[in-house]
Amino acid sequence: MVAIKRSQISEMEKHYRISLINSLVGYKSLNLLGTISSDGVTNLSLISSAFHIGANPPLLGIVIRPEREHNDTLSNIKSTGHYTLNNVLPQWYKQAHQTSASYPSGVSEFDRCGFKKHYVSGFKAPFVAESTVRIGLELAEIIDIEINGTTILIGEIVQILADNNLIEENGNVDHIKAGTMTVCGLDSYFLPQMVGRLAYAKPGIEPQELTTKNCETNH
Amino acid sequence: MVAIKRSQISEMEKHYRISLINSLVGYKSLNLLGTISSDGVTNLSLISSAFHIGANPPLLGIVIRPEREHNDTLSNIKSTGHYTLNNVLPQWYKQAHQTSASYPSGVSEFDRCGFKKHYVSGFKAPFVAESTVRIGLELAEIIDIEINGTTILIGEIVQILADNNLIEENGNVDHIKAGTMTVCGLDSYFLPQMVGRLAYAKPGIEPQELTTKNCETNH
Repeated sequence: MVAIKRSQISEMEKHYRISLINSLVGYKSLNLLGTISSDGVTNLSLISSAFHIGANPPLLGIVIRPEREHNDTLSNIKSTGHYTLNNVLPQWYKQAHQTSASYPSGVSEFDRCGFKKHYVSGFKAPFVAESTVRIGLELAEIIDIEINGTTILIGEIVQILADNNLIEENGNVDHIKAGTMTVCGLDSYFLPQMVGRLAYAKPGIEPQELTTKNCETNH
Repeated sequence: MVAIKRSQISEMEKHYRISLINSLVGYKSLNLLGTISSDGVTNLSLISSAFHIGANPPLLGIVIRPEREHNDTLSNIKSTGHYTLNNVLPQWYKQAHQTSASYPSGVSEFDRCGFKKHYVSGFKAPFVAESTVRIGLELAEIIDIEINGTTILIGEIVQILADNNLIEENGNVDHIKAGTMTVCGLDSYFLPQMVGRLAYAKPGIEPQELTTKNCETNH
């Protein structure tokens, strides 16, 4: 077994540490983050930090890094109050990865990387037309993390756009059918296969496997 | 296409909304969260909210819900300052799911659900011996989210325990080889397959696929 302690982490070569720390936690949710500036320039960036905070009110968090290209995103969200999260599909995941290149301010990654904008009445930020599951968020809270200068944004889900037949009878989204990808570390992209779906756990009862439409669509 | 607006979300039946909102964002990192109380009772719970905050210092965030079983976890972390995240493998993911059952306070999910504790000198919280990638964290910051009563904990990574041959030459953890699972929504468990690994994106250059050991281990 490999055992690494704090002092060894701080002494690591920078790129080695970035790869290790980014990949430690396992598979991460993968989404294109869409915004628009107050003067109408759209922005698209790939994020893997979206996390669930609660269902009522429906809240998601994302982490915005302090570097340059993300400041466009952050200032767009602050000025319009709206942003979108859009799932990434294997047919065009390379284009999605390309949005992480450092394009100059004023250039839209929608245009440069070949994505169509989709707008919804009353909601400012653009959705990705090519995605099959799209979430529109309204900024609810900004948390500045002093330790490393990042920002956690908490948003309320105010728009859900999903292709037909992806939301099951009980509300669950079928991400196998949706074609949703996941990412590990900075650059490794994956498609999951279902192993099992389990019933609500109760003390003293063996975990029960559910058989559902979602399971049947898998293999 | 299905289009759902804020007013429809707030009017949804409770369990439907929980399933929908929990599954919207896609695949999530899946870990067993290990803690110990000041009087030595260990606790293990399944979480899917771990997210990357930064590599230097190495920081991860998790969301703790306000409900009862998680208060054990939160009070343990507050009193000892230490907690662990341990990946979940397909051989025993049903036991991992079972840790989410509401066991009474004073009962350890390690014992009830069949996991062995692994301790490291100088670090209080127990690791899961059966996991192949294990992270030891020291509490760095507590953020109370007033909108819904949840808590975001930010921890610094101070211990990394990985089985041999999982960390590649560039620092990346091979989660295919590690057997790491991912989760969607509340109850659906998955194993990913690699689609591709891409080079650092630069403006005006087509995304390049990398061929690495990690890719070769996939199929």
